[in-house]
Amino acid sequence: MKALLLVAHGSRREGSNEEVRALARSMAARVDHGFDKVEAAFLELAEPSIPDGLRALIASGAERITVVPYFLSAGRHVVEDIPAEVQKVVAEHPDVAIQVAPYLGTSDVMPELLLGLGARQGSSD
Amino acid sequence: MKALLLVAHGSRREGSNEEVRALARSMAARVDHGFDKVEAAFLELAEPSIPDGLRALIASGAERITVVPYFLSAGRHVVEDIPAEVQKVVAEHPDVAIQVAPYLGTSDVMPELLLGLGARQGSSD
Repeated sequence: MKALLLVAHGSRREGSNEEVRALARSMAARVDHGFDKVEAAFLELAEPSIPDGLRALIASGAERITVVPYFLSAGRHVVEDIPAEVQKVVAEHPDVAIQVAPYLGTSDVMPELLLGLGARQGSSD
Repeated sequence: MKALLLVAHGSRREGSNEEVRALARSMAARVDHGFDKVEAAFLELAEPSIPDGLRALIASGAERITVVPYFLSAGRHVVEDIPAEVQKVVAEHPDVAIQVAPYLGTSDVMPELLLGLGARQGSSD
């Protein structure tokens, strides 16, 4: 079983955390993406934590998990903190393949996506 | 003349600010997006500020400017701070049409983009 864990920073504003959980649900609802399960987890300030999110996926049968950082830049959170959190569970479950994908900000699609947001707004004039 | 101003938070880490400037250049280099100019600006910690970015576009002939917030959630920065910074220049230049587009996190394309990042990483196994 193959799973994706979307990892966000987490916010004191519960609405922002809920946006991330809704995004994970929206990802799960797409067809043909190759993941049997998609869940959200948070680096801090919200639940579940990254280790707890990984453990829940493993408990539900995940044998391969891809962690996708929902972050725009390669700051300390992406470079150090997320790998360190993931490593805790790698050590507990050496039989499960856990990898960290490139963070959102690296996506090739980003320039087009941002131009699309601007064009949609500008189309009324 | 129509312009797009990509607005990021700004970071103490200059590499992150440079990532945003590179993204704006990458957007500008695309064809057929309908903007004569694409530049980056920052809410804090980096230059140019939002008002200075808008003023530079206006000085170079922009008559319509779309501000695109490079933010993932609707926190205070998106809801209050960016509109307040934009409003300073609206007041100075009532002849220029300045609008704020929806922030990045609202994009319909986001679920697909994140699944794509995860699938690219997972494709080696």
